Amino acid sequence: MPAPKKRILFVIMDGLGDRACPELRGMTPLQYMRTPNLDWFVDHGQGGLMDPISPGIRPGSDTAHLAILGYDPGESYTGRGPLEAIGIGLDMQPGDIALRCNFATVDDSLEIIDRRAGRIREPETTELVESLEDMDIDGIECIVRESTEHRAVLLLRGEGLSSNITDADPGGDTHLLMCEGRDEESEFTAYVVNRFMEECYERLRNHPTNRKRSAAGLMPANILVPRGAGCYPHIEPFQEKYGITGACVAGMGMIKGVCKACGLDIYPLPDGCDGSLDSDLITKTQCALEALNEYDFVLMNIKAADIAGHNGNPKEKCDVIRDLDAVAGFIKERLPEDTVIVLTCDHCTPCILEDHSGDPVPVAIFTRDMVRDEASEFSETGCSKGSLGRIRGMDLLNICMDLANRTEKFGS
Amino acid sequence: MPAPKKRILFVIMDGLGDRACPELRGMTPLQYMRTPNLDWFVDHGQGGLMDPISPGIRPGSDTAHLAILGYDPGESYTGRGPLEAIGIGLDMQPGDIALRCNFATVDDSLEIIDRRAGRIREPETTELVESLEDMDIDGIECIVRESTEHRAVLLLRGEGLSSNITDADPGGDTHLLMCEGRDEESEFTAYVVNRFMEECYERLRNHPTNRKRSAAGLMPANILVPRGAGCYPHIEPFQEKYGITGACVAGMGMIKGVCKACGLDIYPLPDGCDGSLDSDLITKTQCALEALNEYDFVLMNIKAADIAGHNGNPKEKCDVIRDLDAVAGFIKERLPEDTVIVLTCDHCTPCILEDHSGDPVPVAIFTRDMVRDEASEFSETGCSKGSLGRIRGMDLLNICMDLANRTEKFGS
Repeated sequence: MPAPKKRILFVIMDGLGDRACPELRGMTPLQYMRTPNLDWFVDHGQGGLMDPISPGIRPGSDTAHLAILGYDPGESYTGRGPLEAIGIGLDMQPGDIALRCNFATVDDSLEIIDRRAGRIREPETTELVESLEDMDIDGIECIVRESTEHRAVLLLRGEGLSSNITDADPGGDTHLLMCEGRDEESEFTAYVVNRFMEECYERLRNHPTNRKRSAAGLMPANILVPRGAGCYPHIEPFQEKYGITGACVAGMGMIKGVCKACGLDIYPLPDGCDGSLDSDLITKTQCALEALNEYDFVLMNIKAADIAGHNGNPKEKCDVIRDLDAVAGFIKERLPEDTVIVLTCDHCTPCILEDHSGDPVPVAIFTRDMVRDEASEFSETGCSKGSLGRIRGMDLLNICMDLANRTEKFGS
Repeated sequence: MPAPKKRILFVIMDGLGDRACPELRGMTPLQYMRTPNLDWFVDHGQGGLMDPISPGIRPGSDTAHLAILGYDPGESYTGRGPLEAIGIGLDMQPGDIALRCNFATVDDSLEIIDRRAGRIREPETTELVESLEDMDIDGIECIVRESTEHRAVLLLRGEGLSSNITDADPGGDTHLLMCEGRDEESEFTAYVVNRFMEECYERLRNHPTNRKRSAAGLMPANILVPRGAGCYPHIEPFQEKYGITGACVAGMGMIKGVCKACGLDIYPLPDGCDGSLDSDLITKTQCALEALNEYDFVLMNIKAADIAGHNGNPKEKCDVIRDLDAVAGFIKERLPEDTVIVLTCDHCTPCILEDHSGDPVPVAIFTRDMVRDEASEFSETGCSKGSLGRIRGMDLLNICMDLANRTEKFGS
């Protein structure tokens, strides 16, 4: 009787790991809170610490998720533009350059009034994007597709392109930047991006949709502002790489984009599972467990702890942890047979930093018939006592594939 | 007084590591059994867990032994054929392709009757191999050498060869397969292998040795069936790589082949040390300790636990562990001065899987004057508490070389 092939569930609690918080008597939120359900998985399985990328490297959520899915971010991450492009289904090809864009509002002197154009969304963005078809600048095809809300993607296709250019989006500033090449061979691409913005402005400024918005007192989306240029990334589709099907259960567009770029299906979620602080976590978890009936692998991302960390608010993070423990309890009570369950984070977001850090994250792996170690508490220190030791993000799915009895023998 | 250069003994307990066994109240065989002598080495030395290749990768015994000897299997493993060829002393060269072969018995319509030809062995295989000399197929030299028992090696030498071909050996099936190229440039090699089989059949079917076997009611070895094609592997000879002499103490042909391919001498063993379940472990251990008088490094492989794991029999594995503890006791009582002793496995063979897994294996390193840690039990969890942490197979010999005071300083 050979052991059964198991399914795999990753519960990625975004930004959950932390550093010592003065407000919590020098403890991390995870150390401070009682978390019997999270602890159960460590206690009955194995604990460890994980460097999402490598020790001391401060990951983004995108690069961390790539690594946790087993893709070396050094090879597979070429910027946010390409991930977003592939994420929305654009057929990006070697030689192409992709950029993320915001629909924005500029005045007559091209100063930015609103970098999200009053958070415009479909169907208006669809109408606007239609007017940007058939754009060719000096032999470079400019393909525009809408993404979520006020976002869009620009794909440049043609000879002699380079991604080594600066952003046109000034971020918090109001002065629209000219895109610049960082080296001589990138100057042409920068020129194309700047001409693209001019052309957008020409086509959008008097667009009927914008005239309607202005008449209604709304910000007209009269320009597209690009950033995050990147070239074609080599990402082997998930199903080819691992021989299993996979789905992503996430509210955040960025996470969905990364997962889709890797070839995971995006599992549909009801309203309310939106990656916000008060996202409906139990409904989302229910969806993740449902997804496991259809897929061999499910990645669920829960964003809330990251938001509390970015807010620099340990008490808020403690409240989130109470909800996350309820999620763990919900899973524990409905424990699917023959499943490998991973509880971890994509990165730490220490409250004291209000940003991501390169600290290792706690990780727990549980499945029936695995060797139990003596770690018994899901926290930065509790997990460090476990037998997983200190692993890397890129090894996590390999470890789980083996526990799921799905690996091929290398050698004989 | 500079520290003395020490010798190194690896005790590789093949397939010893395991997962939770329901029959052993959820414990692994190592957790379940009292092993005072194995424990002594952890208690007086250091413990850790080791990924033979890398986390989650399920090793073969061949790739694991390569890694444990410090060779990256990703570079040095090109298939079983080349390891077997080099193991039996064939001078394999870049451009050559090597395949393992079985002497087999086929009927007139080339259906396989016995894929081991009644387990034929020398001197008959020697007589048969002599008749296969001077074989040239379309400019490709076909060199055949006998290996152990019913096994042989085919070395192809000439222009335009490729190892990307399928096996002719159908494994458990009776229908002899035609070898096929997996891409266009491999089709010629596949054709050569198929012609080779025809030529073998022509030369062997009426060979006097086979006529004698048939007359005696034995299976005639009237064909050679190749599998496991591989190209020349880059394996730096052990003595050049480490500057020390080394020997292998093993019963299994495969382990001897890998070790010989790396440049270790094969230490002669008396009958009874054959890598079986009831192999004479104490005599083998005595030989390993004797070998340490002649060599700087000795690798001893004990196969029995792997067999019990493949049998899916935890109780049998427990019996083997009792014998392995006696081996550890034997070594402890005769502790050679100035020796670094390693107790570990090449891979886990969990009874529940009846096959290898990618779980990390327990490892203990002991030598006088090393830092003792708090690990005190030789098991999957006991060793995980040690200060070695989670290491990789490829690092093991470097760690031991340094404890043996034999490393060169990198830098100044």
